[in-house]
Amino acid sequence: QTLSSLLSFLCLSVSAHTCVSPAIDRIAHPPSLRLSLHCSMLKVPEHQVAGHQARDGKLGPLVDDSGRFYKPLQDDDRGSNEVALYSSFSSNTRIPDHIRRFFPNFYGTQLLEASNGSGLRPHLILQDLLSDRVNPSIMDVKIGSRTWYPQASEDYIQKCLKKDRETTSLSLGFRISGLQIYGSKESRVWKPEKKLVHKFTVDDVRVILRKFVSSNISTNSNVNMDCSFAQTVYGGSAGILAQLMELKAWFEDQTMYHFNSCSVIMVYEKESVLKGGNAGPQVQLVDFAHAMEGKGVIDHNFLGGLCSLIKFVSEILIDPDEYPSKGCSEG
Amino acid sequence: QTLSSLLSFLCLSVSAHTCVSPAIDRIAHPPSLRLSLHCSMLKVPEHQVAGHQARDGKLGPLVDDSGRFYKPLQDDDRGSNEVALYSSFSSNTRIPDHIRRFFPNFYGTQLLEASNGSGLRPHLILQDLLSDRVNPSIMDVKIGSRTWYPQASEDYIQKCLKKDRETTSLSLGFRISGLQIYGSKESRVWKPEKKLVHKFTVDDVRVILRKFVSSNISTNSNVNMDCSFAQTVYGGSAGILAQLMELKAWFEDQTMYHFNSCSVIMVYEKESVLKGGNAGPQVQLVDFAHAMEGKGVIDHNFLGGLCSLIKFVSEILIDPDEYPSKGCSEG
Repeated sequence: QTLSSLLSFLCLSVSAHTCVSPAIDRIAHPPSLRLSLHCSMLKVPEHQVAGHQARDGKLGPLVDDSGRFYKPLQDDDRGSNEVALYSSFSSNTRIPDHIRRFFPNFYGTQLLEASNGSGLRPHLILQDLLSDRVNPSIMDVKIGSRTWYPQASEDYIQKCLKKDRETTSLSLGFRISGLQIYGSKESRVWKPEKKLVHKFTVDDVRVILRKFVSSNISTNSNVNMDCSFAQTVYGGSAGILAQLMELKAWFEDQTMYHFNSCSVIMVYEKESVLKGGNAGPQVQLVDFAHAMEGKGVIDHNFLGGLCSLIKFVSEILIDPDEYPSKGCSEG
Repeated sequence: QTLSSLLSFLCLSVSAHTCVSPAIDRIAHPPSLRLSLHCSMLKVPEHQVAGHQARDGKLGPLVDDSGRFYKPLQDDDRGSNEVALYSSFSSNTRIPDHIRRFFPNFYGTQLLEASNGSGLRPHLILQDLLSDRVNPSIMDVKIGSRTWYPQASEDYIQKCLKKDRETTSLSLGFRISGLQIYGSKESRVWKPEKKLVHKFTVDDVRVILRKFVSSNISTNSNVNMDCSFAQTVYGGSAGILAQLMELKAWFEDQTMYHFNSCSVIMVYEKESVLKGGNAGPQVQLVDFAHAMEGKGVIDHNFLGGLCSLIKFVSEILIDPDEYPSKGCSEG
């Protein structure tokens, strides 16, 4: 956003290019480590809307100019778990191609100078979803009415449960974790602060999902969003709803992974629609720090939340002019 | 089952036949109460597999000979809530007929001698799902990975959460609450005790769902269930899977009710199949003591659990001979 937030790093790194195979394979077949002097400019992602951010000396992800996203591994189990999950997923031949496209490509791990100046730290190398985007509108939706998992520590469970109850996770089966909505060249983006996002109520979520595809986002009132871009972004055979439905069909069947506390990212380009082009609506799943093996059971927690999000998006498509939507049981 | 458990009651009752309209309507339009001297023989249901049972001086439901099921109302909110829910549901014109058949008919409430001898108590009058069954196999499956709801008391939430974590609710999105499997005229039924049912693990549930449609249930080993009746009971256009799928489609869309802690009952007649007839597979939803208005949000908790049950049943149909089923993510 601002110049001051664009940090750059000259990195001397050791890269292990064979990390794309599962952890267990790496042990059986030691990779031929290729040591390389790797010079590139890394910077803070311009369009990050949720999660830890590499600003003001904090630890966060970085991106380069070639479309790669470097996510610092957390010290605890989350770091190793996320590597294991990406490794397993990227080498799993049972993931159909039309599903794989919803996940960022994984290029292994790499030791890099951490953004908080704490020295070398392993980073996941992922595809930068937003590298081709100019003025994207982005929403990060954490899926699941439960963001904890049975094997977690009691403290962690209670912490998550509290947050699930305080946010819309429990009631809606998902919560908005962050967003930015591009307005126009003049108004730029609307990007509410974390504090505000964490307080979103069920009604706020209804409004935000409409605001996300509206042209009149700069009005003070949230009530009469025009939903001008609803059909272009949410609708159509390549729209966000169609993509969410494809994911849903897979989640009804797959029992390989449980995506605990994982987010669906929805992105599109408003400027491109205004120029008569394609909005480029895109859905992606990110954040696998708490994902794990499904052991033969579907991820009913993710699926339920996904279906709830789908219902909200469908309602906007069915009735873009109506607000607030009906929902009472009085016949 | 045994003669000693067949209690009978001579009932002097006051029946309010207009209770089928919603509570709020009853206040606006006072019903013309019809006082009637109502004499009938009530007895303990022969085939109840879960919930409170009216045996040994305890409070529980009763049935009559005309196909009605009398469920005593609980003293606390659960009682009034269940009446309100049945009233709302039965008068709700937005419930399609093909969905209504999954719910017991509701005939209002009635004051009856309680089965525990505590005197007159209001009872729900419902359709007795099992009145036409001779030797039914029955399974009661409580749906949802969460059996509590946000508005409940902290004590209640913690109690339910503990039980959800101790049973398969959390991992599977459902738990078996009770069952009986008819074997043969000689072996009669297999009806595990509550204590055993409450300890069912994920693997036990896999076995039980196979055992439910097997002919060799009296063998000691649980491993090689023959699943002889899988196609007849679970499969086909009128089978249990097809019925569960119809319910699923409705739950993806309906935002009127949240069926917290509600059960799916699955029933069929083994004898009738053996005689070349129809197994009469039937799915019904029961227990609305904690159901409530959905307020415009789908019941993602019920839907997720239902999809998980559907997946388990589908797997048996796809591969009736395989046990244990595969499910690991190793490609």
